[in-house]
Amino acid sequence: MNILITAGGTSEKIDNVRSITNHSTGRLGKAIGETFLANGHFVTYVTTPQALRPKSEDNLTVVEIETTKDLESALRAQFKLHSFDSIIHSMAVSDFTTETTLSEDLFIEKLAESLTKKGNLTDLAKLTEELYHSLDEIGETIQQEKKIPSGTDRLLLFLKKNPKIISMLKDEQPQAILVGFKLLVGVSTEELLQVGQAILTKNKCDFVFANDLEKIHGNQHEGILIDAQGQTETAETKNEIAQLIVKKVEEKWRK
Amino acid sequence: MNILITAGGTSEKIDNVRSITNHSTGRLGKAIGETFLANGHFVTYVTTPQALRPKSEDNLTVVEIETTKDLESALRAQFKLHSFDSIIHSMAVSDFTTETTLSEDLFIEKLAESLTKKGNLTDLAKLTEELYHSLDEIGETIQQEKKIPSGTDRLLLFLKKNPKIISMLKDEQPQAILVGFKLLVGVSTEELLQVGQAILTKNKCDFVFANDLEKIHGNQHEGILIDAQGQTETAETKNEIAQLIVKKVEEKWRK
Repeated sequence: MNILITAGGTSEKIDNVRSITNHSTGRLGKAIGETFLANGHFVTYVTTPQALRPKSEDNLTVVEIETTKDLESALRAQFKLHSFDSIIHSMAVSDFTTETTLSEDLFIEKLAESLTKKGNLTDLAKLTEELYHSLDEIGETIQQEKKIPSGTDRLLLFLKKNPKIISMLKDEQPQAILVGFKLLVGVSTEELLQVGQAILTKNKCDFVFANDLEKIHGNQHEGILIDAQGQTETAETKNEIAQLIVKKVEEKWRK
Repeated sequence: MNILITAGGTSEKIDNVRSITNHSTGRLGKAIGETFLANGHFVTYVTTPQALRPKSEDNLTVVEIETTKDLESALRAQFKLHSFDSIIHSMAVSDFTTETTLSEDLFIEKLAESLTKKGNLTDLAKLTEELYHSLDEIGETIQQEKKIPSGTDRLLLFLKKNPKIISMLKDEQPQAILVGFKLLVGVSTEELLQVGQAILTKNKCDFVFANDLEKIHGNQHEGILIDAQGQTETAETKNEIAQLIVKKVEEKWRK
């Protein structure tokens, strides 16, 4: 099979020396990649600079990216070149990217300016509406310095939504068996299943692996693989997860 | 000599899966540490998980930290235990830490609430003053979820100033020869010298190494070492910088 795996965690620049990083060791992605490779499949592995990855070999192609935007263009390029039998989207992708960063002083100056232009704002609904306009104005127009001024006591960071990568995968590669991942923090098994199920339906996944950060400790890694029929299987370690995913994808592919 | 080196880059948690990271490979700190060790000195090396560090040996003690707060307590603990002959503070320390993270909707709701309480705010000065109060209120009181909601189109991240670690070093260890570092981005040599000089005076450093991100490429690393008499020496590579700093510290210590 021709497999595409995304793994690691994207990061979004704040300025030339700082960025917002989604933590991911890449250890699970590495295990999944190595399991597919061990079974003789071809793997295109899209990952981030810090993350672990499978040992290099002939059947492995590694593509490095940093931001969510990089990821999107790297994937679109891959989809032009290849038709994948399966896509394993395990990368921790930033939901948000930096829009602008302002000192509290500059933010308040701009906000006060734009609000006073609006005249008397004692009405809550009117004020709320104007605040949305002002924030859009500030977020979209104010440019920050190359390096954030360290003088100010408080900084305001505006983050705007990134495109949801997972939502485009099935449309771009309808033939691919799509495995999505959902990480939650400190939730019940019921909620984990429910959210995983929702992600699966929404993004036309064939499988979703739902897991909870509080149940991940090194190689111990609890989680539930959900399929489109709502059937579930659990795994306890990264290797078990890798084995389970590869087995399920191979089975589905043979049908 | 008994040397304390800080190296690497701190990171500040945004939530359980994201953090703001100051990029630093730790390569320069590693070179400085190894040069001191090669000259038979004892090195306490405070660094961050991702950063490179000197190969372990008998005269080296490594202390790992992540946040600026961690760094402060780790240093205070060291200062209780040891008297250092020199402190090389090369770590890239976050100037800001996360105060709170809000969806645009929640932010505007809170801001509108607090502003309407203040009645008619057509006067710019009055409005500005009230905005400071409102932002303090929101920053200090609103708590965020364990994981940021990904539904909102815009997030506002409130960051508040971290304590300046470098400013406490000479007071805590007056006997130590203190070497500070200042990284700027895309400035003239004049500005680099001026800012470095100011940092040196302000923090009672014996030396400051001033460098520009745009003149750092792998092992090529241009910068200027400034001493308390305003004399300067330049270096072109990380190894030259390490040699220069060790030489200067040893000379000053012998006096």
